[in-house]
Amino acid sequence: MATKRSPANPILDPSSVQPSQDDLEVVGVFNPAAIQVEEETVLLLRVAEAPRGVPAGQVAAAVLDPASGRIEVARFDRDDPAVDAGEDSRVFTARGQTYLTSISHFRVARSRDGIHFDVAPRPSLVAAEPLEAFGVEDPRITALDGAFLVNYTAVSPAGIATALAVTRDFVSFERKGIIFPPNNRDAAIFPARIGGRFCALHRPMPDGIGRPSMWLAWSDDLRHWGDHRMVAGPRAGRWDDLKIGGGAVPFEVPGGWLAIYHGVTAEPLTYSLGALLLDRDDPSRVLGRSRLPILAPEADYEVGGFFGNVVFTCGAIRQGDAVRVYYGAADGVTAVADIALADVVNGLE
Amino acid sequence: MATKRSPANPILDPSSVQPSQDDLEVVGVFNPAAIQVEEETVLLLRVAEAPRGVPAGQVAAAVLDPASGRIEVARFDRDDPAVDAGEDSRVFTARGQTYLTSISHFRVARSRDGIHFDVAPRPSLVAAEPLEAFGVEDPRITALDGAFLVNYTAVSPAGIATALAVTRDFVSFERKGIIFPPNNRDAAIFPARIGGRFCALHRPMPDGIGRPSMWLAWSDDLRHWGDHRMVAGPRAGRWDDLKIGGGAVPFEVPGGWLAIYHGVTAEPLTYSLGALLLDRDDPSRVLGRSRLPILAPEADYEVGGFFGNVVFTCGAIRQGDAVRVYYGAADGVTAVADIALADVVNGLE
Repeated sequence: MATKRSPANPILDPSSVQPSQDDLEVVGVFNPAAIQVEEETVLLLRVAEAPRGVPAGQVAAAVLDPASGRIEVARFDRDDPAVDAGEDSRVFTARGQTYLTSISHFRVARSRDGIHFDVAPRPSLVAAEPLEAFGVEDPRITALDGAFLVNYTAVSPAGIATALAVTRDFVSFERKGIIFPPNNRDAAIFPARIGGRFCALHRPMPDGIGRPSMWLAWSDDLRHWGDHRMVAGPRAGRWDDLKIGGGAVPFEVPGGWLAIYHGVTAEPLTYSLGALLLDRDDPSRVLGRSRLPILAPEADYEVGGFFGNVVFTCGAIRQGDAVRVYYGAADGVTAVADIALADVVNGLE
Repeated sequence: MATKRSPANPILDPSSVQPSQDDLEVVGVFNPAAIQVEEETVLLLRVAEAPRGVPAGQVAAAVLDPASGRIEVARFDRDDPAVDAGEDSRVFTARGQTYLTSISHFRVARSRDGIHFDVAPRPSLVAAEPLEAFGVEDPRITALDGAFLVNYTAVSPAGIATALAVTRDFVSFERKGIIFPPNNRDAAIFPARIGGRFCALHRPMPDGIGRPSMWLAWSDDLRHWGDHRMVAGPRAGRWDDLKIGGGAVPFEVPGGWLAIYHGVTAEPLTYSLGALLLDRDDPSRVLGRSRLPILAPEADYEVGGFFGNVVFTCGAIRQGDAVRVYYGAADGVTAVADIALADVVNGLE
């Protein structure tokens, strides 16, 4: 068995999800967190919504008004000299502020076979804090001590940060605040204490000196993090030469922790997946790293779409000799692939 | 009494300090941390050194080799197409890596009158960790629980981060690791527990969405930090419209905590100082903010020099009705000014 994309791909797309409010339409269902809970596979989908019916001459952003708690639509004329729609379909700027063209929330989806999912009719976690005013993105779920830890990207005019919430039922979520300040995303909490402490991968985003790289931090209580160390950075001339960041929550294999991560290269801008093998007791030590991607954009739903040439994972589930990787394709749809663990391990260098 | 620069300014310059090794020359003595210890004013100077005798056709950087623990000089030809000396006198790039033109360490200076300082002949804290390979910069000293907490900027190819060390005698320093990951600098730990917890200002440096702003974090043990909140950002059309960051360690005044910070505006790029009045019990609440700078570059040693139009503080000492602000001028020399607290408070809006 090599890498095996599901013939049902994409398994979820915007038509799978009801919008959260009448003036928004679902434009993306992607980058889900994934976890096995007894007989069920549970995904926490990132659902991206954009203002409905924006005229061609306008750009618009849906933004949380923290005072009212409502998602409001801000509209701007494209020919306003203070507006720059730019070339990146994900953002525009207006009056000195960068806006996102969509706002994301999380939605639960459940499945018995891991391929066909029932999507909840209502959101599970939506932007509700000033530091989430532009939405919540890219969740990861870690099962630990009988609870589900959900770390996610909180986006606002203040920047891109990593926040933590805890749930036991995927119905009520208790927010624990910002754990990694801007700009930082693509964190993943290890599913066990290591040497008695909690451990997480995270991804600071320096510019100028330093490039977006994977770091590791430690905590005694999940809310306060320290002892930050760099784990791995981009590799010149490789598929991950521009930037890298965490993907799925790491899981144990015979040689240590296997962390599936994303790597980016330019021209054309391409997001692929690879793996790091990290030392069991000191996961800041890299024991192996994928020479080539374990999954790169090839299928039409990965190469084309809202933001093409992207495969990006926030969750994978170990299944015997394979790992089932749930991933967002082209920032628009959700797909799944089964990858033989032997192939992943043999591809490490 | 208004703002009163010392007639002895600049009180310290590169000629005040012996280089740390023969192949380096001191090019800057600036941005000192400051604290009163009984009858003595103690400064922890940032001493910047550059490779000595670099030919006009070369650029060079002094960099820690973590394997040997030595500071080594890397030299590059200016006409190498892979080298870009650029326009910023503080940095250049070579073969895809950004380098600093100088490397900084910390040096103790002591004074009885707060103006005339004896500078230690040897460094107190020098780059010694991979995450300090490009040097240590911009220390702040907080006296707490009988120890001196020294947070500082650790610069390396991995980015710009905030590290913590603890000393009791300014001779031996115990490193506590990176407390705020890249890019983050200009942190300052409050000199008292607030509601039983430690509290610090810090300055994440997002790009794209978000601008360099002042944030606050909490800790139970000084090593692990969380509950990050944004405190204040740049103000459009003001002297601090481009970016802001922490300056001196905050101190108590009748209305709360007074935090002297730096603000930057462009064209010409100018670093000035102002103040925030923060709520005593919840210092993420801003009660007042300087309408105009309390100190802006005017003197010739502030306007000219290595990197002109900069006044930048890492330490201030309360003296009765005034605050004595130690500051770096033009990233090259150290100066001091006494500012009436009434003027600072009356200038808040």
